[in-house]
Amino acid sequence: MESIIRRRVQVLSHHITVLPEANPVLNPVLLRSGQVKHGDAEAVIIGGMVLDIHATPSTLTNPGTTTPGKVRYFLGGVARNVAECMSKLGTKPYMISAVGLDFGGNMLLEHWKSAGLSTEGILKKKDIETPVVCIVYDLNGESAAAVASVEAIERYLTPEWISHFKGTISYAPVLMVDANLNLPSLEASCQMAAESECPVWFEPVSVAKSQRITSVFKYVTFASPNEDELIAMANALSGGNVFLPLKHNHSKDNLSTVSLFHVLKPAIWVLLEKGIKLVVVTIGSDGVFLCCKGGPNCFRIPPEKTKHTGFSGQLYRTMMQKCPPNRYSDVSKHDRNSHLFAMHFPSLPASVVRVTGAGDCLVGGTLASICAGLDIMQSVAVGISAAKAAVEAEANVPSAFSVGAIADDAKSVYSAARVLFHQSMV
Amino acid sequence: MESIIRRRVQVLSHHITVLPEANPVLNPVLLRSGQVKHGDAEAVIIGGMVLDIHATPSTLTNPGTTTPGKVRYFLGGVARNVAECMSKLGTKPYMISAVGLDFGGNMLLEHWKSAGLSTEGILKKKDIETPVVCIVYDLNGESAAAVASVEAIERYLTPEWISHFKGTISYAPVLMVDANLNLPSLEASCQMAAESECPVWFEPVSVAKSQRITSVFKYVTFASPNEDELIAMANALSGGNVFLPLKHNHSKDNLSTVSLFHVLKPAIWVLLEKGIKLVVVTIGSDGVFLCCKGGPNCFRIPPEKTKHTGFSGQLYRTMMQKCPPNRYSDVSKHDRNSHLFAMHFPSLPASVVRVTGAGDCLVGGTLASICAGLDIMQSVAVGISAAKAAVEAEANVPSAFSVGAIADDAKSVYSAARVLFHQSMV
Repeated sequence: MESIIRRRVQVLSHHITVLPEANPVLNPVLLRSGQVKHGDAEAVIIGGMVLDIHATPSTLTNPGTTTPGKVRYFLGGVARNVAECMSKLGTKPYMISAVGLDFGGNMLLEHWKSAGLSTEGILKKKDIETPVVCIVYDLNGESAAAVASVEAIERYLTPEWISHFKGTISYAPVLMVDANLNLPSLEASCQMAAESECPVWFEPVSVAKSQRITSVFKYVTFASPNEDELIAMANALSGGNVFLPLKHNHSKDNLSTVSLFHVLKPAIWVLLEKGIKLVVVTIGSDGVFLCCKGGPNCFRIPPEKTKHTGFSGQLYRTMMQKCPPNRYSDVSKHDRNSHLFAMHFPSLPASVVRVTGAGDCLVGGTLASICAGLDIMQSVAVGISAAKAAVEAEANVPSAFSVGAIADDAKSVYSAARVLFHQSMV
Repeated sequence: MESIIRRRVQVLSHHITVLPEANPVLNPVLLRSGQVKHGDAEAVIIGGMVLDIHATPSTLTNPGTTTPGKVRYFLGGVARNVAECMSKLGTKPYMISAVGLDFGGNMLLEHWKSAGLSTEGILKKKDIETPVVCIVYDLNGESAAAVASVEAIERYLTPEWISHFKGTISYAPVLMVDANLNLPSLEASCQMAAESECPVWFEPVSVAKSQRITSVFKYVTFASPNEDELIAMANALSGGNVFLPLKHNHSKDNLSTVSLFHVLKPAIWVLLEKGIKLVVVTIGSDGVFLCCKGGPNCFRIPPEKTKHTGFSGQLYRTMMQKCPPNRYSDVSKHDRNSHLFAMHFPSLPASVVRVTGAGDCLVGGTLASICAGLDIMQSVAVGISAAKAAVEAEANVPSAFSVGAIADDAKSVYSAARVLFHQSMV
């Protein structure tokens, strides 16, 4: 039995302005008996915290002049949205990011503190220009002009900074990285997770950044691309432009869900062949494809790393009741090397207010459920419920979730989910 | 001799969240003898405090996608810029405005406090959305799309709020109002100034808002329109579209300064005929036209309302030495009702970084000089120097001014200033 005492360790580095509040290596809580309680370990989320500034005119826009309208601020960034969604579903994700001491940074940090989340993994430094995405819309709600200033994530979220939290990562039930990270940081993060057999979720962020999968695919358990990111990742992983983007190939709108799956199947197979265990392809309002090798995968994290208290516990119990786990566990497993198993989870009807943040809430909802101890199929159903709540809210993440509504919606999704494909790819 | 004691009076109103720190009616400092020291009274500036968000792409912009670039925040708003410029030239303007308790509001207020300026005239309220102007530029530095959310100024800067500061206005050497104010607030402010014979400077803000002059022209001593605002004001004051905008009429770029003056002269005359004493027309990089009725006007405020201490005193003494006052005082005055007197003040060569804020610094520099006791011609020369410093800085107002540089530049302008017109308009 390891004897770990909680103490304050000063991390010496001229790059670090704000020191972590405690040595993260020593993060697990020391019980009276001296036993480390792993259940207190939390998911680690590494990636961007971004201030989204959205300006919407109220009258016709004329280039060159200022149009009256509204300017609104939203807390954004893929990793931040995922973590916020998870925290609202009962987990306390450990965020590793970088912000400046400016307008945006203060806004992001204050919100994080007010949610009761740790900011010790967030590098705060005067020199950092807090990541900002500024969008001016036209009267139709389309982006008229948009600028993203997010280079701070690549510049300041270094392997060195991330390595301060190696201990926290080693106890985490799951690690999520978003592809805003630079390659060395992606690699370092994934290697730390691999050393403690912590599963890694890779969120591709954009078509351009999704190609960063090439440096970390061997460590990745889950990836959550949309159709375009999937094609880009498959091309990057197969070292050529084997797969054509959907718009050049087929118009997604004219395809049935089944046909769309068959168009995407070869690309999905590339990711699985490279060792990614579960590919969660988001297909917008058509839902999600959950794909793996061999046969049905009812992935769940070890029970000692799950938590059944509070909102998380309620979600676990309600979901276990409404959506029995281990679906298709009676289906025979095939040769893992040649068979593709794919399911379709439909999306839910929603009164759309703003679609931004939906994809991030899908990931956040799925990860929160995994951390609560649900299996991947139950978790994806919760993810789709969370995504529905996100499109019905103005902010990227809804202000609150209701266990009842989430579980009811998840039940609809879960019971409507179907096996699409279960055949050899050879 | 009035006996006024300084005490804290609670202003009762459910509209007011943050009470003024002291009853402004009792603002003038009580000397030991019980005599009010009017020299401590300061210029009052009423209008917008705005957060400017400027997004600049670093690569070619494609509509519909986000372009990498920079997002920067600037403290703005016409009235705020004027006041900040004045404070950096040695005065302590009393700002009356309204901001929210959000990040924009905090940023504006913190800067104001750090400059040692009073924030008691600034209404701070949770419901207020702090005015914001959000501009996305294209690669040429032109505005690609811009939205202004400034309705809080019209909504919250009410006659009721402004009336709390009637005492401060009554002792002010000058009052500046920007046309962001709604009509009742413009009228109320100007009436308060008129009651104590405090001269009023009207800053038109934009073509649309400049037309608000119609409700207050009879109280206005100074107006500072650009060419387009001048035309709009003249049309509004003459009750019809008598004057065509410059672009429909003449292309400004093809006109000599003298020809431009002759094109604008009838519109200028409308403003003077309506009773505005001094019209300061800003003509961009071509400088300024200073126009009045009758003959040379060497307007200056009463000596007891001026201040010759600190930066302000240095500016006064240096300017009095380099640019002797009362220029053209030997020129015979003509019938005030029929003669137009117009001077041209050239601008200064500058290494332009960003032109925003230049017009506001022209007004701020002129007003600070008037408050220091300089006459209007000396003051306009200082205003042009301040505007030059503004275009050479990134922010709307330069971080600091040097008395020497300002006075040297002002001397160049002052000595190059020429009488353009001195004839009857009948």
